[in-house]
Amino acid sequence: MNAPILRPPLVISMGDPAGIGPEIVCRALLRHPQWWPDVVVAGDAAHLQRAAACVGGSLPWQAVASPSESSRGARPRLWQACDALPLVAWGQVSRDAGRMALASIETSTRAVLRGEARALVTAPVHKEALSLAGCPHPGHTELLQALAAEHMGCSVDALPVRMMLSNPQLKTVLMSIHVSLRQALDSITSDGLRQTLAIVWRHFERLGQPALRVAVAGVNPHAGEGGLFGREEIEVLQPVIAALAAEGRAVFGPFAPDTVFWRAMQGEVDVVVAMYHDQGLIPVKLFGLEEGVNTTLGLPLVRTSPDHGTAFDRAGTGTADSTSLEAAIREAMAASADITS
Amino acid sequence: MNAPILRPPLVISMGDPAGIGPEIVCRALLRHPQWWPDVVVAGDAAHLQRAAACVGGSLPWQAVASPSESSRGARPRLWQACDALPLVAWGQVSRDAGRMALASIETSTRAVLRGEARALVTAPVHKEALSLAGCPHPGHTELLQALAAEHMGCSVDALPVRMMLSNPQLKTVLMSIHVSLRQALDSITSDGLRQTLAIVWRHFERLGQPALRVAVAGVNPHAGEGGLFGREEIEVLQPVIAALAAEGRAVFGPFAPDTVFWRAMQGEVDVVVAMYHDQGLIPVKLFGLEEGVNTTLGLPLVRTSPDHGTAFDRAGTGTADSTSLEAAIREAMAASADITS
Repeated sequence: MNAPILRPPLVISMGDPAGIGPEIVCRALLRHPQWWPDVVVAGDAAHLQRAAACVGGSLPWQAVASPSESSRGARPRLWQACDALPLVAWGQVSRDAGRMALASIETSTRAVLRGEARALVTAPVHKEALSLAGCPHPGHTELLQALAAEHMGCSVDALPVRMMLSNPQLKTVLMSIHVSLRQALDSITSDGLRQTLAIVWRHFERLGQPALRVAVAGVNPHAGEGGLFGREEIEVLQPVIAALAAEGRAVFGPFAPDTVFWRAMQGEVDVVVAMYHDQGLIPVKLFGLEEGVNTTLGLPLVRTSPDHGTAFDRAGTGTADSTSLEAAIREAMAASADITS
Repeated sequence: MNAPILRPPLVISMGDPAGIGPEIVCRALLRHPQWWPDVVVAGDAAHLQRAAACVGGSLPWQAVASPSESSRGARPRLWQACDALPLVAWGQVSRDAGRMALASIETSTRAVLRGEARALVTAPVHKEALSLAGCPHPGHTELLQALAAEHMGCSVDALPVRMMLSNPQLKTVLMSIHVSLRQALDSITSDGLRQTLAIVWRHFERLGQPALRVAVAGVNPHAGEGGLFGREEIEVLQPVIAALAAEGRAVFGPFAPDTVFWRAMQGEVDVVVAMYHDQGLIPVKLFGLEEGVNTTLGLPLVRTSPDHGTAFDRAGTGTADSTSLEAAIREAMAASADITS
């Protein structure tokens, strides 16, 4: 008999149970039975069973009281990570759905922070439902940041995070996310770029890829064309890039925003640092909304998610595509491969 | 004997003779002899002959004194549209190269405005060389606007233009081009959007496509998410879209910038109005720098160009790709198909 694998499992939070989250979790597991012994799904049992039926399958769930409980017979583990509330209507914003989603994330995240699980994959939540459930954070990223800060006994400011979007062609890290474009422009500073690059390097060093080549996108058309159309490149970005390159870092730019992603796709660089949300998301999403993976960099845990929302309009129809969630699971597995208990 | 075609020809300006312009013009013509009877190349004979040799071919040029002179024996016409200055060095900015490029554009544009040619295709110019030659305009668009205003006896302000970038997958029209991103944001107004849409509709009505479906991109991430991350969508864009839609126009949005181009590629709409340079150019250029065509909308003439620059680093090596210029020629032919003398 082989010794059991001592690697803690991956935990997947089910997301808002009125959305496609539970469905795509079940579909991904039905498609990939090889993942079952390595996975714990955190959520509500009744909603997950409804979702499996909705995608036309059933899963041999093993109920567990915590992610530390081993899988018996290579079955997928179901962790009742929230109160068992009555079934919510598909596609409706509700406080109950928000409460279940929120509790599933909180318990999952704490389990990863305690080392009982090795990585977190989150299915989509609905901002409004989270807010009805009393969550003061606009989304996963901020909530995870707060939970991690609490766990580490530090302030949220001491845990700066960045969002990385990736698909098979492209990896891009965003300087800012959910702020207006004007605010995003105001927030572009030399310190912010240095911080972003430090977070990127730390993440990839942990993955064993320290010699990553990073391109920094410009802010303005043609990267400002030598100062003709904007000076952020000259005053804010170039000094940081030059200083870090002089220290031996493989960091290049600032490049014209309209060709830097094309260059990355040709293999000239590994990661592009994008100056604002849409600069990075337009190229990533163009390759299909179903392929993108969102990774939160800077947290003391591995966390990925699919790059789409709850899709309330499709929830319950059994048509939701689990491709992006599957990519997120693969990414989380790869990023946590060397984490052992 | 057939009557000669009474359609005036297409005129192609050779661009900066130190760049790849003359080479790609010659390569495109060598690849497409079927275009020869329909095309006049405006530029300097010696530089065009050097370019043809450089790409390993020779063209049976017919020297003409104006585009009105018919093609004899289906030969490509060469119009000495500038002073015959000594050969310039490949890849060097020079006043002489700028003078030849500038004169070629000016004479070509005036010929189209007078009806002697039916459309203009411009090979790339170098801003610095144009400036050395005394041209006060930063590029083709502004120069053409000035020439058209002079021809029509109106002010430049009465001839607002917009740049459209297209490739086989996508057409996008830009609200602004060569200004900093901050200035681009400041210039987004309801009047500007109305003007852009009017220019787009006029262009496509002229091409016989009046029922075009136009998507307007938002300014902010998620198109502002209901005002949470920026209010331009609510205050500036939505009122214009609603009013025009109420008049029966097929105009939609504002859409999240990171998915609107994907939607257009799925065929949901025909054209995307982009709020700033890189929002529109990132998706277009991602499909390859060689496929994009630039069309100037709003001028009283058809004008297209390849979507790349002079590539001084490759000029004279005979390796320049003429794909984008060929696409620009095809686009100009299609857009001027019903123009007769």
